[in-house]
Amino acid sequence: MTVEKFADRHIGPDPGDERRMLEAVGYGSIDELMDAAIPEVIRWHGTLDLPDPASEREAIAELRALAARNTVAVSMIGLGYHGTHTPAVIRRNVLEDPAWYTAYTPYQPEISQGRLEALLNFQTMVTDLTGLATANASMLDEGTAAAEAMTLARRASKSKSPVYVVDADTLPQTIAVITSRAEPLGIEVRVLDVEHDELPAEFFGLHLQYPGASGAVRDHAALVAAAHAAGALVTVAADLLALTLLRPPGEIGVDIAAGTTQRFGVPMGFGGPHAGYLAVRSGLERMLPGRLVGVSRDADGNPAYRLALQTREQHIRREKATSNICTAQVLLAVMAGMYAVYHGPDGLRAIARRTHDMAARLAAGLRAGGVPVADVAFFDTVTATVPGRAAEVVAAAAERRVNLRLVDADRVGISCDETTTAEHLAAVWAAFGVDGVDGDVDAALPEALARTSDFLTHPVFRTHHSETAMLRYLRRLSDFDYALDRGMIPLGSCTMKLNATTEMEAITWPEFAHMHPFAPDEQTAGYRDMIGQLESWLAEVTGYDAVSVQPNAGSQGELAGLLAIRSYHASRGAGHRDVCLIPSSAHGTNAASAVMAGMRVVVVACDADGNVDLVDLDAKIDKHRDALAAIMVTYPSTHGVYETGIASLCAKVHDAGGQVYVDGANLNALVGFAKPGKFGADVSHLNLHKTFCIPHGGGGPGVGPVAVRAHLAPFLPGDPLGAHVGSRPAISAAKYGSAGILPIPWAYLRMMGAEGLSRATGVAVLAANYVAARLRNHFPVLYAGNKGLVAHECILDLRPLTKATGVSVDDVAKRLIDYGFHAPTMSFPVAGTLMVEPTESEDLAELDRFCDAMIAIRAEIDKVGAGEWPAGDNPLANAPHTAAMVAGDSWPHPYPRSVGAYPAGVDRAGKYWPPVRRIDGAYGDRNLVCSCPSPEAFEE
Amino acid sequence: MTVEKFADRHIGPDPGDERRMLEAVGYGSIDELMDAAIPEVIRWHGTLDLPDPASEREAIAELRALAARNTVAVSMIGLGYHGTHTPAVIRRNVLEDPAWYTAYTPYQPEISQGRLEALLNFQTMVTDLTGLATANASMLDEGTAAAEAMTLARRASKSKSPVYVVDADTLPQTIAVITSRAEPLGIEVRVLDVEHDELPAEFFGLHLQYPGASGAVRDHAALVAAAHAAGALVTVAADLLALTLLRPPGEIGVDIAAGTTQRFGVPMGFGGPHAGYLAVRSGLERMLPGRLVGVSRDADGNPAYRLALQTREQHIRREKATSNICTAQVLLAVMAGMYAVYHGPDGLRAIARRTHDMAARLAAGLRAGGVPVADVAFFDTVTATVPGRAAEVVAAAAERRVNLRLVDADRVGISCDETTTAEHLAAVWAAFGVDGVDGDVDAALPEALARTSDFLTHPVFRTHHSETAMLRYLRRLSDFDYALDRGMIPLGSCTMKLNATTEMEAITWPEFAHMHPFAPDEQTAGYRDMIGQLESWLAEVTGYDAVSVQPNAGSQGELAGLLAIRSYHASRGAGHRDVCLIPSSAHGTNAASAVMAGMRVVVVACDADGNVDLVDLDAKIDKHRDALAAIMVTYPSTHGVYETGIASLCAKVHDAGGQVYVDGANLNALVGFAKPGKFGADVSHLNLHKTFCIPHGGGGPGVGPVAVRAHLAPFLPGDPLGAHVGSRPAISAAKYGSAGILPIPWAYLRMMGAEGLSRATGVAVLAANYVAARLRNHFPVLYAGNKGLVAHECILDLRPLTKATGVSVDDVAKRLIDYGFHAPTMSFPVAGTLMVEPTESEDLAELDRFCDAMIAIRAEIDKVGAGEWPAGDNPLANAPHTAAMVAGDSWPHPYPRSVGAYPAGVDRAGKYWPPVRRIDGAYGDRNLVCSCPSPEAFEE
Repeated sequence: MTVEKFADRHIGPDPGDERRMLEAVGYGSIDELMDAAIPEVIRWHGTLDLPDPASEREAIAELRALAARNTVAVSMIGLGYHGTHTPAVIRRNVLEDPAWYTAYTPYQPEISQGRLEALLNFQTMVTDLTGLATANASMLDEGTAAAEAMTLARRASKSKSPVYVVDADTLPQTIAVITSRAEPLGIEVRVLDVEHDELPAEFFGLHLQYPGASGAVRDHAALVAAAHAAGALVTVAADLLALTLLRPPGEIGVDIAAGTTQRFGVPMGFGGPHAGYLAVRSGLERMLPGRLVGVSRDADGNPAYRLALQTREQHIRREKATSNICTAQVLLAVMAGMYAVYHGPDGLRAIARRTHDMAARLAAGLRAGGVPVADVAFFDTVTATVPGRAAEVVAAAAERRVNLRLVDADRVGISCDETTTAEHLAAVWAAFGVDGVDGDVDAALPEALARTSDFLTHPVFRTHHSETAMLRYLRRLSDFDYALDRGMIPLGSCTMKLNATTEMEAITWPEFAHMHPFAPDEQTAGYRDMIGQLESWLAEVTGYDAVSVQPNAGSQGELAGLLAIRSYHASRGAGHRDVCLIPSSAHGTNAASAVMAGMRVVVVACDADGNVDLVDLDAKIDKHRDALAAIMVTYPSTHGVYETGIASLCAKVHDAGGQVYVDGANLNALVGFAKPGKFGADVSHLNLHKTFCIPHGGGGPGVGPVAVRAHLAPFLPGDPLGAHVGSRPAISAAKYGSAGILPIPWAYLRMMGAEGLSRATGVAVLAANYVAARLRNHFPVLYAGNKGLVAHECILDLRPLTKATGVSVDDVAKRLIDYGFHAPTMSFPVAGTLMVEPTESEDLAELDRFCDAMIAIRAEIDKVGAGEWPAGDNPLANAPHTAAMVAGDSWPHPYPRSVGAYPAGVDRAGKYWPPVRRIDGAYGDRNLVCSCPSPEAFEE
Repeated sequence: MTVEKFADRHIGPDPGDERRMLEAVGYGSIDELMDAAIPEVIRWHGTLDLPDPASEREAIAELRALAARNTVAVSMIGLGYHGTHTPAVIRRNVLEDPAWYTAYTPYQPEISQGRLEALLNFQTMVTDLTGLATANASMLDEGTAAAEAMTLARRASKSKSPVYVVDADTLPQTIAVITSRAEPLGIEVRVLDVEHDELPAEFFGLHLQYPGASGAVRDHAALVAAAHAAGALVTVAADLLALTLLRPPGEIGVDIAAGTTQRFGVPMGFGGPHAGYLAVRSGLERMLPGRLVGVSRDADGNPAYRLALQTREQHIRREKATSNICTAQVLLAVMAGMYAVYHGPDGLRAIARRTHDMAARLAAGLRAGGVPVADVAFFDTVTATVPGRAAEVVAAAAERRVNLRLVDADRVGISCDETTTAEHLAAVWAAFGVDGVDGDVDAALPEALARTSDFLTHPVFRTHHSETAMLRYLRRLSDFDYALDRGMIPLGSCTMKLNATTEMEAITWPEFAHMHPFAPDEQTAGYRDMIGQLESWLAEVTGYDAVSVQPNAGSQGELAGLLAIRSYHASRGAGHRDVCLIPSSAHGTNAASAVMAGMRVVVVACDADGNVDLVDLDAKIDKHRDALAAIMVTYPSTHGVYETGIASLCAKVHDAGGQVYVDGANLNALVGFAKPGKFGADVSHLNLHKTFCIPHGGGGPGVGPVAVRAHLAPFLPGDPLGAHVGSRPAISAAKYGSAGILPIPWAYLRMMGAEGLSRATGVAVLAANYVAARLRNHFPVLYAGNKGLVAHECILDLRPLTKATGVSVDDVAKRLIDYGFHAPTMSFPVAGTLMVEPTESEDLAELDRFCDAMIAIRAEIDKVGAGEWPAGDNPLANAPHTAAMVAGDSWPHPYPRSVGAYPAGVDRAGKYWPPVRRIDGAYGDRNLVCSCPSPEAFEE
């Protein structure tokens, strides 16, 4: 007796829209369309075995029941995950605000100035606190940031040694991730107690933790000098909160800092997501992996932000890339940066001091009660020795709802944080059986290591300290940006569909938000049940046998999948198989991941229709038959086509002993209609932030589960606290990766059900074909499959027009801003084209608004072509038009202001105005500035 | 060991700002300033006896503990309060979105088009569903709406009879409110069983409930005709959901419809807030009380919305007003309207049908089990007869966590709603000891009363049914508006301070949101404790002995306070005392409330300094000594001045046997420094939406508790379900009024503590004096008190400038929009002036931005005065400038576009653009249109 189906809210077109769209495409029903579009050889005709769809209230009720099965204890486990207070104004107006969470990666910088400024704040915060020159924004977590630091050190070091030294007082999960990453690259990780053990004669890098996992604060200056003397680079995994009180690594010559910003207001979320960071000294900035925001200038010469040094990145460098990181943790980096903006340097110092005071009191109380505490300086963590009694003490604390760290049979670790209270200390003391102490105690930070340098001196960290000021700053920035709450973001390969409020709701509930990833199992039943259900549903949807949600981005899922293939071959004595075939059309990340998995990339050509060239495939298989490890393909292809040769491709590779990896980026065109695990693939990663509704957050978080057939299941990611290197790698620092946002895809699947999911796929394919049908006469649609149909996206070829008129794909993309749209994907997978993916969530009115805009733009291009407007001065070349430009006192352009500002069909009253004109990216790359510019830069 | 004080987040200026502001004002400290500003005769030198301030997390933890003491059962009590599903997209993007909840009443329509459109949707929804011509937006609840309908009927009826007939099947709390309102006005309420009893020969109005409180759906056509024959008007209190299936009242000639829109997605909140509605047939629209949104046109002739027929209202008509309603329930009306937009007519019908089906099944199951159910047609409510067992059945249901209505010893009422499930029916059947039935049953709605007319035919109700479309519609509208999240709203007398996120959080928790106001006490302990604490803290802050939070707006608090005075006099045999003295400077609502309380208003003059003229006061007291009931004054005065004569004024009135009413509108200038209950007043109402942080919500909700000294305590509002008319009136329909938002002031008081509150007051007074000091040389500050100081607001006198240049206060207000501000209060309390109240939440940068803008505007006025710009065509006369105007192809004005669009100091990139130009209010009043205009109206 359910009145309302969630699927009807998720899917944009209503039955009337659907009829009109089918008519335009020339089919009588979605079933007919899908029968025509999808090759029968892969078509799956069953009904997904999922629970009947829940209504929004039912799904929330079930999530509440799951949440109730989690027990949120006070976490004093530490190990890189700390309790923190998210300022309410930031939670509500960033994490819970669709203007922030539905935004896309800021590849179109003119409509992304808000989040770019927020990320520049983040970078400035990291560089200021670490004392280094340049920081990126951002890494996936501390473990993967440390692994990236290792490979960066290897590239930058003059040493030829394969040895990477890691201090034993490093977080254990970081060691696991580093080790998993090192092995396929031939790096030899050596874990040493660097305080006491001698350093090897040769090594290319040294990893230190500061403060150590034990809590110890040691002076690393001599070690840094020693490493440098050996030609090695030094990475310090530093706690940014501690660095408000302690001498930063940059001041003792450290080359790289890596770590997490979780405790800057981002909930622990049972492991994630939160923003990792990576910062480097001057001279290494062009080797930094990941996304880097920089300052450049717009067409008026005003400062403007954009992603810098894009040519470093995996999507451009492919197999020559040095990292596969793509998705970042933008939304969480924004939060962490805003936490620093809101508290300012004095506030952060006060939080750090209070945290340290708590730890000092804790230690004093233990000592007063006769419990020895390691006799070293510490910031927030103390290690207490209770011979033979550690487990007992930990259990006694858990009974008081406080979690401690069981270091070993004799030692207990206790971490304080911003949320620690006197009651917590009392509970810990009681668990140890001591009385504790009253009042203040002396600080335990060594004078010599005290921070003396200033930080966060930029005005942005000193002016938004009242909630009113903070709220307005957040609003001002989000108003700069165009996100899904304004209109369509038709990004090919990115599936910018609805991120429903109900899906988002549970992630900020305390029972999900405040769980430490290493909390004992008996406290996490709700989480683990939810994850188990999600993994089983994803397996059902994809046709695989096992799924791991650990990879916290698509790139990490790729790596996990390829490592599983590698380990599988090795387990069968075929460890020599190391060739990975990759079609020329593939996403660049594929090749980068293959290299990181220790494979050699061999490119397979595409034919004139954009499909994998099966002849070339045969040739490449023949050539590499004995070394063939795998093929990586995307399905439907990155050209947005259901290739008919897929089954044959799978068979050929299998016959040669290879494994088939299907990139799940385009799964939105398959769900309910075809299952990669059933049509020949062995492994896929999924992008929960594409097909399964995790919002893009302005460029992250993403989640990239890896799904495999049974024979690969033993090689799925393992628990980083107990991972066996080689067979079960540690892909991210926490067992379940970014567990904190898994309620989102859980809710999506739970509410859509089998029928809703299939309908979504059908409508997504219908929408793409509708757009193709409407635009085909204005822009050639580059590739198509069966019966001229595309899958869930279509490529509009601008190259002939560009050749004829000089109007570039960039011009069209920027002109779309004037019409009130986010541009489609530019020049991927084919340079000079636009790839449009409308998704099922856009209704017909919005699809038509987009098509009308594209058709109007075509007419504008024709005017340029006909010489009516000069090539260098026309509405396309000058796009996007800012309000300041069209309201300027002079107007030297050969077209009226109204044509620039209000092209046909634009909602005049509700028009979105970009805050800057077109940005000169190259200028910024030549003059690299990656921290907040002084306010004077903005003076007119 | 608290690092962070909430007060530091709430108060805008930091210590450095404070120093600079004090310097400008000429005082060394806030204490010195306050010593100088506040007359010693009223100064209170203690420390408020409040708990030590809690941090934001501590306050949330305490609220969670309170919430946990509420038990949210399934509510099937009905009586006008129903379970409802708030669509998540509406909750998050309206109720939890500062862009909506921090907005002010749309008196400046150019910057309020978003909420005005939303309210027009609400009005259209009400008129369509009731079948009447015009609806307002909105009333405070069903009870007060019904009371307003009664007085409207009296004004419109030709009958001279004082008799108002109310059907006995009306909601009991409505009867209580009507009766409380009738008594002081000399109206005789006669409650009759209109089905069986004969109507009196003469009566001016008839009130019917549809469906009845018992659930009965009866044909009222004959009754309507009979009433009309007697010259009476007929009001129907109609359930809007039922009207999707039932013939609407407008189609049988009903004159007035009144009721609630709560079940349209607004949580019950233990009684409120939710939007009441009032609709009238054609011909009565100019008699409608409350706020009415209408369509007019802007300077370009484009359609634009604004509040219509303002001259009807109490603030203009004062003692000639026919209603005192001022604050509406805008935020909740927006939600209810959006619920209709999201569901559309088909969705609403489906919800209604499902609700009815549930009730029909319920009845069938009871009958099948031998329980008699009243043999009438019903929509959602059935009354079952269980002789002598009713209490037992209700208790048995409560054990199953379902609340039913105990009608009397023999009868139980059961209401179904949108949230009713099969499990709920099963629980009810079990409570009755019957087995129930399976499957569908016949509908119980009479064919003859079925609705045949269409409704919600406007496209807005048919195009936003996907969540994506809804989200964008909400964003588009909120982007039209200027609220506190963009900048300062310096409204004199309205105290637009920070509405902190933490204060807002608890109101959407299920434990607070989903409580029925008539839930049994054992389920509401958390609510009642919270309210008890709040009332005691408010008593401490004001110096009174008792507080009632029942009045759900300031106007209702005034009425409650005056009724208490009236009853007090009556209880002492002085019922003839009926003169209420009101200074000429008073807010118009004061006078209107006095009339509603059955008093005669006598105006007391003000002297040249704006203070109450104590000589005239003596004269008026002398003249009315024996009839003197009360004086109503505002303190500080509506002129923003601490009048020194206040103590003497109180003494004079007391000596003459009168009571002193101090309007609490300006309490933000007193908290911690003076207590009305201690300096001579007997009663005050407070505005929790001014001083105590309930957000204005675009024009409501407000809460207006009444606070009294002990002798008046017996006359505070009573429980509407058990109110004794005369001594304890029913001021609103629920015992605790708008209980659902009381966590907001609770959190404010809990987090500020005594010191924080005093500091807030001091900074608010400092800020007003700072603004006065900076602007005094550019605009005369009209009134001042001790040592030339103002209190928490100041009046800028524009009259000399207007006289000299023709530039009006309106021009300045609209020009401030161009500078990025909401205008101050216009022409209140003195025509031709602006009243500025900066509050404590604005930091110095924002105060300076405002002062700079005002000074720049002064220079612009001088240019007009000097003839540099013509009087009719200058940046002031043309303000506000829209983007479309300054980006227009032609620019015929004698000043550059940049001067129009970007006056000095404006944030170019982040500029707020109003969607329409200046609106012609008079045009709209002459051509009254109060429902959604057709889309064609907006075509260019």
